[in-house]
Order: sequence, then C-alpha cells, then structure tokens
Amino acid sequence: VGWQRQTSGVSIQGLLEDALGRLDEAAVTVHGAGRTDAGVHALGQVAAFSLTRTIAASGVARALNARLPESVRVLDAEEVPADFHPRFAARSKTYRYRIWTGEVVSPFERRYVWHVGGALDLAAMDAAARMLEGRHDFAAFQSVGTDTTSTERTLFESAIGRSGMADSVITYDVSGDGFLRHMVRAIVGTLVDIGRGHRPPEWMREVLASRNRAAAGPTAPAAGLFLVRVEY
Amino acid sequence: VGWQRQTSGVSIQGLLEDALGRLDEAAVTVHGAGRTDAGVHALGQVAAFSLTRTIAASGVARALNARLPESVRVLDAEEVPADFHPRFAARSKTYRYRIWTGEVVSPFERRYVWHVGGALDLAAMDAAARMLEGRHDFAAFQSVGTDTTSTERTLFESAIGRSGMADSVITYDVSGDGFLRHMVRAIVGTLVDIGRGHRPPEWMREVLASRNRAAAGPTAPAAGLFLVRVEY
Repeated sequence: VGWQRQTSGVSIQGLLEDALGRLDEAAVTVHGAGRTDAGVHALGQVAAFSLTRTIAASGVARALNARLPESVRVLDAEEVPADFHPRFAARSKTYRYRIWTGEVVSPFERRYVWHVGGALDLAAMDAAARMLEGRHDFAAFQSVGTDTTSTERTLFESAIGRSGMADSVITYDVSGDGFLRHMVRAIVGTLVDIGRGHRPPEWMREVLASRNRAAAGPTAPAAGLFLVRVEY
Repeated sequence: VGWQRQTSGVSIQGLLEDALGRLDEAAVTVHGAGRTDAGVHALGQVAAFSLTRTIAASGVARALNARLPESVRVLDAEEVPADFHPRFAARSKTYRYRIWTGEVVSPFERRYVWHVGGALDLAAMDAAARMLEGRHDFAAFQSVGTDTTSTERTLFESAIGRSGMADSVITYDVSGDGFLRHMVRAIVGTLVDIGRGHRPPEWMREVLASRNRAAAGPTAPAAGLFLVRVEY
C-alpha cells in the first residue's frame, strides 16, 4: 500500500483522511513528509492536517488508532503551527534498504528484503556509497518522466552495513535533505551492480556525473525500502 | 498454519508431504520434531521422511523450496539413519516467546507478539522463570485433555530478557528436553500475572507443586511463540 491517495485502491493517505473525516465530521486533507510507493515500508512517516473540532493531540492519536486497520498505526501526535508542512519543513530524511544474500529467504523476511543471489563485495559497495555523500546533482538516479525543478540534493550519510540474525541482511543507510523519485532504489541497483563485481566502485562517480538515468543500474524492488525517520 | 496435517485446511506437514509426494511419485509421510499450533512460528523445525527415489540431500532441499509456497522454506537437508525420529531423538528444544508492552503495536510486529498493556515487573518475572529450571513435574502447565504418560520434564534455561529496537520486546527464552502441550504458553500466562503484580514470584513454585492446570495463569496467545531450534 503506497502513501498517496489514488482514484481507486487503498492508500495510507486515504485511510488517514477517511478516519479523520469520521472523527472531525468534515473532509480533512492530510499532507505527508514524502510519498512512499506501494511495497515500500514506513517506520516513521510524518503527516499533518487541520481539524475543525478541538481535540487534544493525544486524543487524536488514540482515536485514529481505534479507526485505522492494525496495519497502520499512529505512533505519536503533536500540535504544530498552522503553516507547518511536513515535506517542506523536513531538514533530513533517513531511509534504509535491506538486501538478503543467503540462498534461502526466511519467510519472516520475504516482504522486507530484496533477495540477491550470490556473494556481494561489501567493501566495494561501501566505497561507492560513500562517494555520494555531500551535495551533488542526482539526476542520474531520478525516475524518468518527473518534472522536479532542481535535482541537486545533499546526502549526510550513505553507507553499507550488516544487520539481522547471523548478519544475514546487508543494509544501505542513507540520510539527506531530500530525495528524488525512486532515487534510493536506483542507487541500490547501482550499488548491487558494483557489489557483484560487474563494475568497479569508481563507476559510481561516472554515473553521478552523467546526469543520465540510463547510465545507472536498475531500480531495486520496493520491498527492501524503509522510510526510517524524518527530522525537523 | 499449524504443523500437524488436519482432515481439512492447510498444515506445514501437509504441504511438505504433498511436495515430497510429487517429487517421489509416491505417498510420503513426514515426522516433525514437535507440533506447533496454528499461529505459532517456527524458525528451526526439524522433519524426517523416507523417499523411494535416490536423491541427494542438497537436491531435496532445492526441489522442496521450488514446490513449497514462499511462506514455508527448507533451510537445510541431510541424510540420517533409517531409524532416526526427529521427536524422540531430540536432546533439547528451544522456544522464544515475545511480549510487546508499548501502547501502540508496530504493524511489523503485530503477528509476532502478545500485546500486554501496562508495565511489567521484569525482575519478578525473571525470578519466577528461574524457579522452573531443572527437573520438575509440569502437569500444572499442560492443556487439559492430553494423555501423556509422564509430565516430568527438564528445563535447561528459563529466563526473561529484552530485544528489538529500543528494547520494545520482552522475551521469554526456554530450552528443555521436552515440552507438554501448550506448556510454554501456560508458563508465559503465569509469568505475566506475576509481572503485572497480581501475584508474587513465589507463586510460581505453588503453581508447579499443585500439578493442577486451574492453578496456573491463562494460556498466552499463539502469535508470540517461536520454536527456535531443536538439538540432537
């Protein structure tokens, strides 16, 4: 289930707006800190809205959780100034991408990882990931057909690690002041090409300089991607 | 989905027997190391069977994974003597039970925890859990209506801990030479009564001595229970 309300089908934005509409007895519009595509997971999405009724923030969280399906939970709610916009006000967003390299994927993990068969060179992947830290033009990692005015973004951290039982999961942790559409997934597809030894780490710099989506690796599947947190 | 084949409905044993039947072109009976009820999770179940065709163990694992749904995975396969029985030969089984005490249950955890509202006294729970280590008659923690000849079992470890992000999950880890039906879940229900302060830790010894299921706490839900491993 993706974030953005669609003409048909379920979305997190739609579920929140419906639950808030029943609470406020009026149509409520919810703004999110970022769109997550269907299959992408959000541990710490942030959303803002205005109500006509006066309800304490703690009461709003409880009332929403009572009305939402158990697969969508409000962790916390607080009052903000009327002009607060969760996307434009965000200083930093953090994503984690999870890759499973073992032969057999745990049934408990299959919806939360990209299964990449065979060994990956983590040192090469980490070296390439680090090249993306700082201010760069990330046009090469943006989905075609989007009309963003600027494709420059700053990444504060871009690094490869391990987690999970027996280090079975390879993680890519990235935080930055903003992300282009499918940017994290295109970076991960490029990192995996490097990890497989198809390309050297330095290729990442060439891809970045090309500003051409066709020069980068494939878009990694949505399932492995988590929006971890948004900071203000 | 539980382990044991039923007259109707899906079971892990049934899925394995069907997949093996197609592989062996003959009816195959699978013996498991222990029955897990529907809703209980198995990280390391062990099962044994005989085939009429000669197939290398590594080939059996791959062939089964190709035929099983992704929610059931064979992690490893090896040849054993014809008289090996995974339940009777087991020296030790280890279970973990997971309890969530935060107000809001993470959507990623809801199928894998028991949500207990309010604070729990972990020191009291751990003290009570430790009283079960050693050889005891566990009749008080056995489901009524079972006809096991002996209700004596030895627990090697029985302890309370924490795990998960921000220590959000309370764990009960227990290993022993065998377990009665619903024994771990009845112990956990009793531990939670103690953790809530309804009873002192010493109550555990009284319950044990009573050999009476009615004296113990309620049976904790299946969702929080994991069969972690079986040792031979």
